Formats: sequence, structure tokens, C-alpha cells
Amino acid sequence: MKFDAGPRAALMVLSSIIEPGEAELDDFLGEVGPVAAVEAIWERDLPERLHHLTSAVVERIRDPVAHADELRSAGDSCGATVLIPTDPQWPQRLHELQLLATEDQPHLRPPRCLWVRGATNLSAICERSISIVGARAASDYGRFVSDQLAGDLGEAGWTIVSGGAYGIDRAAHLGAVSREATTVAVLAGGVDRPYPSGNARLFELIEQRGSLVSEWPPGCEPRRYRFLIRNRAIAALSVGTVVVEAAPRSGAKHTARLAAELDRTLMYTPGPITSITSAGVHQLARECWEPRLVTSAAEVIADVSGFIPEPVFPGAADNRPLDGWDHDCVRIYEALCPGWVREETELAAEVGLPVTHARECLMNLAAAGWVAEVNGRWKPLRAGIPPQ
Amino acid sequence: MKFDAGPRAALMVLSSIIEPGEAELDDFLGEVGPVAAVEAIWERDLPERLHHLTSAVVERIRDPVAHADELRSAGDSCGATVLIPTDPQWPQRLHELQLLATEDQPHLRPPRCLWVRGATNLSAICERSISIVGARAASDYGRFVSDQLAGDLGEAGWTIVSGGAYGIDRAAHLGAVSREATTVAVLAGGVDRPYPSGNARLFELIEQRGSLVSEWPPGCEPRRYRFLIRNRAIAALSVGTVVVEAAPRSGAKHTARLAAELDRTLMYTPGPITSITSAGVHQLARECWEPRLVTSAAEVIADVSGFIPEPVFPGAADNRPLDGWDHDCVRIYEALCPGWVREETELAAEVGLPVTHARECLMNLAAAGWVAEVNGRWKPLRAGIPPQ
Repeated sequence: MKFDAGPRAALMVLSSIIEPGEAELDDFLGEVGPVAAVEAIWERDLPERLHHLTSAVVERIRDPVAHADELRSAGDSCGATVLIPTDPQWPQRLHELQLLATEDQPHLRPPRCLWVRGATNLSAICERSISIVGARAASDYGRFVSDQLAGDLGEAGWTIVSGGAYGIDRAAHLGAVSREATTVAVLAGGVDRPYPSGNARLFELIEQRGSLVSEWPPGCEPRRYRFLIRNRAIAALSVGTVVVEAAPRSGAKHTARLAAELDRTLMYTPGPITSITSAGVHQLARECWEPRLVTSAAEVIADVSGFIPEPVFPGAADNRPLDGWDHDCVRIYEALCPGWVREETELAAEVGLPVTHARECLMNLAAAGWVAEVNGRWKPLRAGIPPQ
Repeated sequence: MKFDAGPRAALMVLSSIIEPGEAELDDFLGEVGPVAAVEAIWERDLPERLHHLTSAVVERIRDPVAHADELRSAGDSCGATVLIPTDPQWPQRLHELQLLATEDQPHLRPPRCLWVRGATNLSAICERSISIVGARAASDYGRFVSDQLAGDLGEAGWTIVSGGAYGIDRAAHLGAVSREATTVAVLAGGVDRPYPSGNARLFELIEQRGSLVSEWPPGCEPRRYRFLIRNRAIAALSVGTVVVEAAPRSGAKHTARLAAELDRTLMYTPGPITSITSAGVHQLARECWEPRLVTSAAEVIADVSGFIPEPVFPGAADNRPLDGWDHDCVRIYEALCPGWVREETELAAEVGLPVTHARECLMNLAAAGWVAEVNGRWKPLRAGIPPQ
């Protein structure tokens, strides 16, 4: 069968049928691209290692093109836009998750696509952003700290990134919106499904002042394991994460660990040692990542300034390593996306060059170790690291 | 004139007339020993650089022997014993202060002697000790934390070291005595002068359960600068210092800095970022010594275990560098005291050897770089560091 709805629709379909963390599918996707991957699934023409994915999906969804249409109209009815990794609005920082994912933790790979309500240029609004995470069952003290910190950071021009839970998340978003700052909620279910429902009005405010983001399609329910998968996006989107209050075993500590592993600045606000809601934060401080104790937005800003990591993969915004290359080569390179292969013809069309000239650029980039050919398609190599 | 009351009396006299930090006097004392120093002062036979010290003292105190008697009876009437650096009960850790003192900070040199009420074997009771310091104007929270931490450490067999102030100091001592643990108050005035007077009953309890310690003689008033001088002893006596609550500019932060400079484990208990009494502690956490956040006695013990510093100068208790030397040489070496010179005859008498044999030991030690001769007297050299 032919899937002619394009790579964005293909990624939406794939996201709706197979959870993040299916390493074999992601590898296959990286090899053949999303359109060919969808076609292979519905033609039951998959490598043996992927057979287990096929039958259930194909029986449930007969026509992937019709399914893509349904997904698109579900997005349209809640005002959601879909971003895919090759979009310029896609936050480049998410690509770094690729370095974190291992065989044991395939779910740490970057999202395949994102549904976004509200401001859609996630790359721009997350450029200067801080994640604030913490306990749902927060204390009055924790909520006050979260609210103030988010508000003060917002006033200083920083975007807040958090989840959508009660407690620290909610207080952070409220602190930001109350000072007309930008705030981003990364959800573990569809962006049309406020969860918890008591935060429905808050989600409306966030949509007006920032973005609601999810890698699961509209209609998708938040599930326990999805929160854990979602945490990597909160950690990766911003330059630093502040843990405000956390129980000894908590999702916030998980996000903190991911932020540290991503070389983001990890910070925490301390509390009384007599408070159980600060116990997880204090544990964190004693563990080996040496997070920074912060007591104000000014200290957060001081701690992340100068620590804003150089992008590991050069993106559209910051491409110093390719300085000196001719303009067409740079544009071709920037149209590539780490972990993905793209067709010459697709790249040429996107950049607006004749295919022969695009190919010439790719050959030059390949000779210098910036790109590699995989079965007639092209993938970017990590900046500055020559191919093996 | 002849001062025949011995080196202990000489050190008491010197401590009573000249404040710690008079570098020239301490250097002279190190060169000639305490008895000769007293004789030189009252004979007005001092090097030119010390002339300024002489006249005022000699006019005020006519007879140093009589003055020594007065000091001794003042000590006796309050039950104070005097320790001097050559005593086996002298805490070896205080010698390390010698490495901290600079030309700019001569007051960081070790005390010349200590008046002690209560348990007099300071070396033994401070072997496993933790200093707890903090604000006078502590919050209920801070006092609670200090009390619990001291009590829990005390129950685990650790001695508490602190000052004698209200607030964190008082709560630490109370926590210790309420659990029948050993506690040491290092004072900035005479051990017969409870200061503040509201802590008089507390000092009685401390004397029963531990020691009151001062480097100033009985009758001496606590003065502002004496608290700053005193802080180095609190930092040096223990293996680690915990700052419980502190205002942004405070004596506790001063003690903390000294503890860090002495390579002691520096720890702090956090508090709400909204509390001014925790602000100094949080500042400390952001400064460069990387103090450890602690929330319990168990964490304190974990943090100091394995970090108990090797003695820089080998003392009686731990003298591995001299392993292999014959027993008499080791005893002679241990009878020496860093920063002081001692007579051969005195050493021989103390160790119980014929003077000729003691001299032989000293010559052998000198040949190996362990001791040096200064004008016919002997001083130890820093362990393992050959003489220049």
C-alpha cells in the first residue's frame, strides 16, 4: 500500500499506535523514515524483529490514511498543532535525549512528534527556560516557593516548564501566568484531556500564556508509565531544573536525575529537615550530582548562566561549527535531523534547491564527516565528530 | 630574675598578659620556651621587636611568680585545670591550627594553654566529636534541630563541641546533656564567668557532663574579638562542624570557614528559604567549600567517617610515620610539641631516660629530619617533611 499523507501524518499515526520506547520501531524509523515505516507495517513487510508489533495494530486500524485524518481532525478540534523533529519550531534540545537512551532505557529517546496547543514555536519559547518540578502533595511552603520562583523567573524573561499536576507544578504555572510570563505544561496524555480535571481552568490559562504539549495524540489517557516517559521531555526542554519539594521516592527526583544526566543545571530549594515534603529534595542534595541549592530566581539565573550547554547537534539557531561552509550546504545540513534519514528529493524541495545541487552539497558534507548516506537516504552526524 | 615555677605556670602568666595573635611573642616563645620567655620579659631583655610588650606588662605585674600563684589559686577556686600543649590530654588536633595561621591572621595559631573545668582529658573526649554552631537569635525550628542532632549524635557516642551562647549553642548542649552525652563548651572568657549569665545553670550541667574550656584565665571577660579568636578552637577540636542556623553575616559562618580551611568536614542543616535565620546557612551552601547538607545524626556520622583527617603532626595516639624507630626515640619525639622548643633535660626527665641517651635519640631523629636544634633546644619538624 501507498501512504501518501506525508511524514508528519506518518509520525502521528506511529505515535498513536506504538508507545515511546519501542527501540526496534524507532531504529527502523530512523533507517527508512516515517512514511516507509507506516507502509511496511500495513504491508506486513517488516523485519522479523518487528513482527510482534504488526498484527495487533493492523487488525485494530485498517486504513492508516483514514486514521491519520481522524488524528488530524482530533487535533484541529482542540486547536493542537503537530510538530515533528525536522520542524524549525522543534526544540533542538530534545535531540540530546538521543545520547541518554540506552538499550535498557529505550524510552529515553526523543519524542517522535509533539501535539502543541497555544504557542507553537516551542524552540523559541524554550530557549531561555527553567523547569520547576516537585511533589503533588506539596506543603503550603512548597507551593509558595514554587509560585514565587516561577513568577520571579517569568518577570526576568524566563519561560517556565513543568508538568500539569497539583502541588508544585500547579503553583509554578500559576506563579508564571499571574505575572504574565510564558509557561509550558508537558502532559502525559492528550492535550485535549485536562488531567487532573481540577486543573482544567489552569490549562486554559497556560494555553493563553504558553503551551500545552504532549507526545501522545488527543484522546490519549495519561497512564502511570507515561508520566515517567514524559519526565525526560521536561528535563530536556530547559537549561536547568529546580526541584522545589519532593517526597523521598518521587517523579520529581526522576526528572532531576534525567536533567543531571543531560548536563542541565540541577537545582533545588531546601526546606525544613522536619518536613517530609522536603525529604526527597534533601536526599537529592546528598547524592552525587552536586545539585545547586537556590533560594531565589536571581540565584537560579546565576547558576544557569554560563552553563547553557552548547547544542550537541548544531541546529538552525546555533551553527558555529559549520561556519565557513557555503550557505546551501548549511541549509541542507540544518534540514537534516539527528536520528533520522531523509531523502535527497525531500531535502532539495524543502531547501528550494535543484536535486543535483542538493546532492552535491550532501557529497561535500559527507566528505567532511558531517553527514552519512544510509541506503540512499541521508543522516546528519554529530557535530565535530568525524564518522567512524 | 629567675622564674622557677615551671613551664605550665609560665604559659599561664603569658596567656594572662598577652592576647593570642601576638605573633612576635609566639615566635619568641617557640624559640626560647615559656620559662625563658617570662624571664626575658621581666628582665627587660627582649629582642627589639618585642619591646612594646614589655613596659606595660612589667609595670602592671611586678612579680610573675606571685602572679602565677594568683592564677593558680583562681583556677583552683573554680575547679579549673590548666592544660599545655605538651600534655598528653592536649588535643592533638589543635596543633593543626599552626598550618592555618598566616602573617595576616596570627590569631589563628593554636592556644598557648587551656583552662578546663569538668572532664580534663580533652584529647580523649574530643577524639570523636562534632561541633554544632549557629545563630544566637535562632528560630524554634533551629533550636529543635540543634537539640535533636546533638542528642542523637551523643547517643551514638559522639561528643558535642560548641560555644556558650543562647540559641543553637545552648540547644546543642541541652540536647547532649538531656541524653547523658558528653559536651564541650569553648568560651571566650574565663571558665569561672558564665556568659551569658542566663546560661549559668547550663554551664553547671556541661561541667558535670563534659568540659568548659577557655584559653583565657579565670576572671577574664568575654570580648567581641575573643569570640572570633575562640572560633578556631571550636573548628579545630572536632572532626566536623555542622552549621544549624546562621544569619547572612555571623560568627557561625566564620567558624564554618575555619573548619573548611582545616579540612574538617563542613556540614549544614537547611531550612525554609523564607527564613532569615537559615539565610546564612544557604549562602554557605552556595559558596565554594561544598559543605554537605545533613538532615540527621546518621548522615553526619556517615559524612565524617572516613574523613577523619590523619594527624598532620604525629601524636601519641597515632604515630605511624615513626614506625620502625626504637621505642625511646618515639617517646622523645612524642614529648616534643609542634611550634615549641624543649630542653634536653626536660625531655629526658619526662620520658624517664638518662640525659645522654635522650641526646643520642635527638641526634638520630635530627639526622633523619624529624627534629631540629634551635639554640640548644629541640623542636619537632612536620611529619614526613624533611628540614629545609
